[in-house]
Amino acid sequence: MKASEIASMVGGILEGEDVELYACGGLEEARKGDLSFCKDPKHVKLVASTQASAVLLPKDWDSEVKCSVIRVDDPNLACMTAAKLFAPPEPVRAPGVHPTAVVDPSVKLGNDVHVGAFTVIEKGSLIGDGAIIEAQVFIGEGCKVGAKTHIYPQVTLREGTVVGAECIIHCGVRLGGDGYGFNNGRREDGSIFIEKIPQLGIVEIGDGVEIGSNTTIDRARIGRTYIGPMTKIDNLVQIGHNVKVKGYSGLIAQSGIAGSTEIGYGCLIWAQAGISGHIKIADGVQVGPQAGVPQSLDGSVKYVLGTPAEPMKDFGGRVLLPKMLSKLKAEVKELKAKIDAK
Amino acid sequence: MKASEIASMVGGILEGEDVELYACGGLEEARKGDLSFCKDPKHVKLVASTQASAVLLPKDWDSEVKCSVIRVDDPNLACMTAAKLFAPPEPVRAPGVHPTAVVDPSVKLGNDVHVGAFTVIEKGSLIGDGAIIEAQVFIGEGCKVGAKTHIYPQVTLREGTVVGAECIIHCGVRLGGDGYGFNNGRREDGSIFIEKIPQLGIVEIGDGVEIGSNTTIDRARIGRTYIGPMTKIDNLVQIGHNVKVKGYSGLIAQSGIAGSTEIGYGCLIWAQAGISGHIKIADGVQVGPQAGVPQSLDGSVKYVLGTPAEPMKDFGGRVLLPKMLSKLKAEVKELKAKIDAK
Amino acid sequence: MKASEIASMVGGILEGEDVELYACGGLEEARKGDLSFCKDPKHVKLVASTQASAVLLPKDWDSEVKCSVIRVDDPNLACMTAAKLFAPPEPVRAPGVHPTAVVDPSVKLGNDVHVGAFTVIEKGSLIGDGAIIEAQVFIGEGCKVGAKTHIYPQVTLREGTVVGAECIIHCGVRLGGDGYGFNNGRREDGSIFIEKIPQLGIVEIGDGVEIGSNTTIDRARIGRTYIGPMTKIDNLVQIGHNVKVKGYSGLIAQSGIAGSTEIGYGCLIWAQAGISGHIKIADGVQVGPQAGVPQSLDGSVKYVLGTPAEPMKDFGGRVLLPKMLSKLKAEVKELKAKIDAK
Repeated sequence: MKASEIASMVGGILEGEDVELYACGGLEEARKGDLSFCKDPKHVKLVASTQASAVLLPKDWDSEVKCSVIRVDDPNLACMTAAKLFAPPEPVRAPGVHPTAVVDPSVKLGNDVHVGAFTVIEKGSLIGDGAIIEAQVFIGEGCKVGAKTHIYPQVTLREGTVVGAECIIHCGVRLGGDGYGFNNGRREDGSIFIEKIPQLGIVEIGDGVEIGSNTTIDRARIGRTYIGPMTKIDNLVQIGHNVKVKGYSGLIAQSGIAGSTEIGYGCLIWAQAGISGHIKIADGVQVGPQAGVPQSLDGSVKYVLGTPAEPMKDFGGRVLLPKMLSKLKAEVKELKAKIDAK
Repeated sequence: MKASEIASMVGGILEGEDVELYACGGLEEARKGDLSFCKDPKHVKLVASTQASAVLLPKDWDSEVKCSVIRVDDPNLACMTAAKLFAPPEPVRAPGVHPTAVVDPSVKLGNDVHVGAFTVIEKGSLIGDGAIIEAQVFIGEGCKVGAKTHIYPQVTLREGTVVGAECIIHCGVRLGGDGYGFNNGRREDGSIFIEKIPQLGIVEIGDGVEIGSNTTIDRARIGRTYIGPMTKIDNLVQIGHNVKVKGYSGLIAQSGIAGSTEIGYGCLIWAQAGISGHIKIADGVQVGPQAGVPQSLDGSVKYVLGTPAEPMKDFGGRVLLPKMLSKLKAEVKELKAKIDAK
Repeated sequence: MKASEIASMVGGILEGEDVELYACGGLEEARKGDLSFCKDPKHVKLVASTQASAVLLPKDWDSEVKCSVIRVDDPNLACMTAAKLFAPPEPVRAPGVHPTAVVDPSVKLGNDVHVGAFTVIEKGSLIGDGAIIEAQVFIGEGCKVGAKTHIYPQVTLREGTVVGAECIIHCGVRLGGDGYGFNNGRREDGSIFIEKIPQLGIVEIGDGVEIGSNTTIDRARIGRTYIGPMTKIDNLVQIGHNVKVKGYSGLIAQSGIAGSTEIGYGCLIWAQAGISGHIKIADGVQVGPQAGVPQSLDGSVKYVLGTPAEPMKDFGGRVLLPKMLSKLKAEVKELKAKIDAK
C-alpha cells in the first residue's frame, strides 16, 4: 500500500517519497517497507535511526527524519488504523460443515455453525448458533459449545466438556483430560500398587473465556473443574482437577493451579507462577511471576511474590539481605575492635 | 436423576423434597441441581450454607440443613457411587478401524484394536491386542504400542517409539521428538556455526505408564529415553533426551527433567520443579514444587525444596532469614549501646 | 545385527561371542542386546558391571569385561557410527500431496513438496521447494513456508505466519496464536469490562530455526513477532507477542519470554527461565535455569541466575547466607560474653 493512501486514510499529510508499505513495526524493529510511529519527543534518536520506510509523527515534530513522514494528530491511533490495513485478513469461516468432517448424526448443530475439515464431533454434542469449529478439532461425546464460540484448529474436548458462549479456544488446548489422581501404597505381600482414581467429573467453561494455545484443563474427579466467565487464560497454563476460577481473572503463560484450588474474582496470576492445591486465593489478589503460593491468601495482601509467596515489601527486603548482612558484619567488626581496645 | 433413586442406590434414606439431581459437587462449589456430601461435623456451617439441592450426610447428623438430605453410613463412599451415575458415560471404542484412518498395509493390528477417524499409522508399526487408538492420532514408522494401551486424540508418536501395555496417553502428548542437541562454535574464518546433532535413539515407555496432556518426551541421542513401568506423568511435563525414569514414580505438572538424568524408583517430582541434566535422583526422593536440582541426590535426604534444592529444614531456615537478621541487628544495637555506656 | 558386522563397519576387532545387537546405550542403562562404549579408564567398574552384550573399548583397555568386546581406536566415534546403524530409518517423505490433504487451489506449492495425510493448507499460502509438510498439519491463509523446511505432524500455523528456509518445526508447535492482550477497567455504571485488543500482526521465523514440540509463539499485536535465523528453541517454550529474538540464540525447555522483549544474538536462555516484557537482553548473555529477569541486561554480566536475576557470584553469595548469618551470630554471642565479662 502506498504511503499516500495510508496518509489519506488516517487523515495525515505525507512528506517525502510516496513509498510502498507492507507492515507496521516499532521504531527499533522496523525494517525497509515498514511504517512506524512515534508520539514522544524523547525518542528523537530512535526516529532518526529507524529502518522504517515511513513514520507517523505528530504535526509539530521537528527533529531529523531520514524516511518519509506522515504527520497526524495522534500517531498511536493512526498506527492502529494502519495496522488493520496491513493485518492478514481474518479468514472467513462461512456456515457449513466441511465434507470431510465426521459429525455424528445425533449432534445438534445450531444455525450458521462452521465445522472445518477433518473435525470429529461425537454423539450427543450440542454446538450453539454461530459457533466456529475449525479444522482438525476433536469434540467428544456429550459436549456443549455455546453460541458464537470460536474453537481454533487441533483443540480437543473430552467427553462431557461444557464451553460457554463467545469463548475463544486457541490451537492445541486440551479440555477435560483426566485429572492426576492415584492411590498408592503396599499390599500385604509388600508389593507396591499404584491405582488410578476414576476421574468422573467434567470441565465447565463460562461465557466470554479465552484460552491460549496448548493450555490444559483437567476434568474434575467428581463434579466440575470450573472456569468462570470472562476469565482470560494465556498459553501453556495448567489447571488441575476441581479447580474453580470464579471469573474475570487473568492467568498468564505457563502458570499452574493445582487441584481443588479456588481463584477469586478479578485475580491476576502472572507467568510461571504456581499455586498449591486445596487453597483459596481471595478476590482481586495478584500472584507475581514465578511466585509459589503454598497457602490461602485472604486478600489482606494484594500482591505477592517469591516462593513461598510473601508481600512485595517482604520480598524486596529479602532481595536486600546480602547487603544488610554485609553491613551488620562491618558493624560487628567495628564493635569488636572497640571492645578489644577498651 | 431423582434424589429418591440415588437414595435407594446408595442404601440411604431420603428426607425432604425428592429433587432432580444432575451432578455432584463439594459443599462450597455445589449449585442448584447438585448432590453434595459431608462426613465431618466441623463443616456444619458449610452444610448449612451449601447451594446444593441435596446432601449426603451420616445417619446421626443433627445440624441445620436447608436442602434435601440422604442419610447414609458413609457419605464419601456414597458420593463416589453417585458420582459414577452422573459421570459422562465412557465412550465406547468398539474394535475396528474407522474408514477414514490411513493405516499402512504393513501395520500389524492385534485383535480387537480400535483406530479412530483421521488417524495415521505408518509402515511397520505394531499395535497390540485391545489397544485403543483414538481419532487424529499420528503413529510414525516402526512404532510398537502394547496391548490394552489407550491413546487419546491428537497424540503423536515419532518413528521407532515403543509404548508398553496398559498405558494411557492423553491428548496432545508428543513422544519421540528430537532431543535438543547442537554443536556450535566458530569456523576458521570467524563465522558462527550451529550444527544439529543427529538424534538417533528412541523413546521407550514401560507398562502401566500414564502421560498427561501436552507432555513432551524426546527421543534419545543414541539408545533410548526410558520411562519405567507404572510411572505417572502429569500435563505439560518436559522430559529430555536419554532421561531414564526407572519406574513407579510420579512427575507432576510442568516439571522438567533435563537430558541424561536418571530418576530412581518411587520418586515424586512436584509441579514446576526442574532437574538438571546428567545427574541421578536416588530411589524414593521427592523434589518439591518449583525446586531446582543442580546436583545428584543420593537419597540421604528424602525431600528437597528451593533453588538450588536443599533439605526442607534448610529451606525453612532460609525463609526465616529476614526475621533472624532483624533479631541479630537488634542484639548488635544493644551491644553497641552497652559498650558505649562502659 | 551381529557384533562381527559392526566390528568390521567400525574398523574394530571383536573379542568374545559374536552376539546379536539391537541398540546402543550408555554403560549403566544398557541391557541385554545393547552395544555400549567406554573411552575413559576411570569407568573400569561400570564396564565390569554393564548389562550390555558388547562394549566398544580402546585397543589398550585391559580391565575385566564380562561381555563381548570390540576394540577400536576411538570408542565414542565408533559408537556414533554404530548408533546410525541401529537408528530407526528416517521416514521417506517423497514429493507429492497425499490424496486426503485439503489444499486450496490458490496455494502455490514449490517443486518436490511433500504434503501428508489430513493436512490442511488454506488459500494464498506459499510452500517452498523441497518443503516437507507432514500429516495433520494446519497452515492457515496467506502463510509462507521456506524451501526445505520440515514441519512435523500436528503443527498449526495461523494466518499470515512466515517460516524461513531449512527450519524444523516439531509436533504440536503453535505459531501465530493471538497474543495475550486485553483492556480492562470499570464502566461509568461501575460494571467491569475486559475487552480483547485485536492482534493484527504476524509471526515471522528466520532461516535455519528449529522449534521443539508443543512450543507456542504468539502473533504480534501489530507488526511481527520475530525469531531470527539459526535460533534453536526447545519444547514447551512460550514466546509472547512482539518478542524479537535477533538470531543464533538458544531457548531451552519451558522457558518463557514475555511480550515485546528483545533477545540479542547468541543468547542462551536456560530451562524454566522467565523474562519480563518490554526489556532487552544484550548479545551473548546467558540466563540460568529458573531465573527470572525483571529488567534489561546490558551485557556487562554474561550469566545471571535467580529471581530477580543477579550475577552468578551474587547468587552464590545468597545461597551461603544462612551459613554467614550463623557465623555472625556466633561472633555476636562471643562479643556479648566479652562485654559482660569486662
